[in-house]
Amino acid sequence: MNLDRGKGWLCIVGLGPGDPKWVTPEVTATLEAATDIVGYIPYVARIAPRTGLNLHASDNRVEMDRARAALQMASRGKQVVIVSSGDPGVFAMAAAVFEALEGRPDWQALDIRVLPGITAMLAAAAKAGAPLGHDFCAINLSDNLKPVALIEARVRAAAEADFAMAFYNPRSTRRPHTFGRVLDLLRTICTADRLMTFARAVGTPEENVLTVSLAQATPEMADMRTVVIVGNSATRRVGRFVYTPRSAL
Amino acid sequence: MNLDRGKGWLCIVGLGPGDPKWVTPEVTATLEAATDIVGYIPYVARIAPRTGLNLHASDNRVEMDRARAALQMASRGKQVVIVSSGDPGVFAMAAAVFEALEGRPDWQALDIRVLPGITAMLAAAAKAGAPLGHDFCAINLSDNLKPVALIEARVRAAAEADFAMAFYNPRSTRRPHTFGRVLDLLRTICTADRLMTFARAVGTPEENVLTVSLAQATPEMADMRTVVIVGNSATRRVGRFVYTPRSAL
Repeated sequence: MNLDRGKGWLCIVGLGPGDPKWVTPEVTATLEAATDIVGYIPYVARIAPRTGLNLHASDNRVEMDRARAALQMASRGKQVVIVSSGDPGVFAMAAAVFEALEGRPDWQALDIRVLPGITAMLAAAAKAGAPLGHDFCAINLSDNLKPVALIEARVRAAAEADFAMAFYNPRSTRRPHTFGRVLDLLRTICTADRLMTFARAVGTPEENVLTVSLAQATPEMADMRTVVIVGNSATRRVGRFVYTPRSAL
Repeated sequence: MNLDRGKGWLCIVGLGPGDPKWVTPEVTATLEAATDIVGYIPYVARIAPRTGLNLHASDNRVEMDRARAALQMASRGKQVVIVSSGDPGVFAMAAAVFEALEGRPDWQALDIRVLPGITAMLAAAAKAGAPLGHDFCAINLSDNLKPVALIEARVRAAAEADFAMAFYNPRSTRRPHTFGRVLDLLRTICTADRLMTFARAVGTPEENVLTVSLAQATPEMADMRTVVIVGNSATRRVGRFVYTPRSAL
């Protein structure tokens, strides 16, 4: 690591999807070196308090404020860790931090690092078998930051090119209808026996992993704690597992 | 884990892209519980020998033989770990094991688990900044197991739908030309300033991460140890980093 203990720095780290057994040694060592932890409330709640460690938990949808606050602290000499669930570079805080660097050469000069983590789709796939064993896409179904038309265009392109897909943030109480529309769209392109895995709260006590056919899938099977994996046209079951064959010959 | 020490089992694990700091505690504990380690020569070489641990290293391109040998050992009561680099479910051994289960209900009844790891594109992206910070695809450019026409169709679909992309196995001495064709294809769809990151041997002493424009990219920048990340149309540099903004509004 060679993080300088005498100077401010900022590491944006991934804690993995929930189970401590998925936190990398690199992230654990960095958390131990930090003076300040910044992040969304449930992720900061995963950090064990200790003397000298300041925890800064904030609500969802304030990512830019959180990024700037962390950069400000690092610029004042603090050793700061922003915690994300999963991987910080996949629909998480790393991009927000780099957005906050725009126009701020003082912040750009800081020691800033991104430390990878197990992203949710990899943990979900592992629990189900190997549904992402061939080419695949990761698509965020939240329309907070992009139009629904773009979500639908990407799902359509991915399905038509026969990618497997992983959907993040498939459904929230605020926007309950997007995922139903995506299911309807998939039904116009894929056959009814296309396999889908709904992996909810993987790595937590509430974990539930269910594989069904596209014909059986309903919007209610997904919520914000669910990653949905759609197989490609060759994805199949063997025993209790689901996998996508390596060969497309 | 609750792996039964008295019975045979098979875990297919990801060691991450090279640095021990990326091996999850779950994988470390499983390696310590194993009697037999199975895998491609350079991955088995990453496992520390110890008394009572049998190392079974084999060459590339014998994935099905390796999978069957591991299942055979587990069925005879051995505690077997198949090691992959990165994540075992992404262009690695998990799918091969499930293929080997076809028609073998005796093997399907075994305790078989997939343990996720940090896949190469996540480590590569973290080193560069956050180029996968929006929707993205992972595409294996090897034509061992699929026609080049399908590779090109998927790259085209992904570029046209403005996904970021990660290319695995972009170029080998045996098939030096596919990646050049993919670059040519990208040049028909993307503008010349599209950012591409060539991340070679991430997490090893030979690590080299280079971001260039599509206009500057050459086939020789990639080899089998390189992951290539292509940004989407909004991917940009800030300071020494490259990132894809979260918003597409």
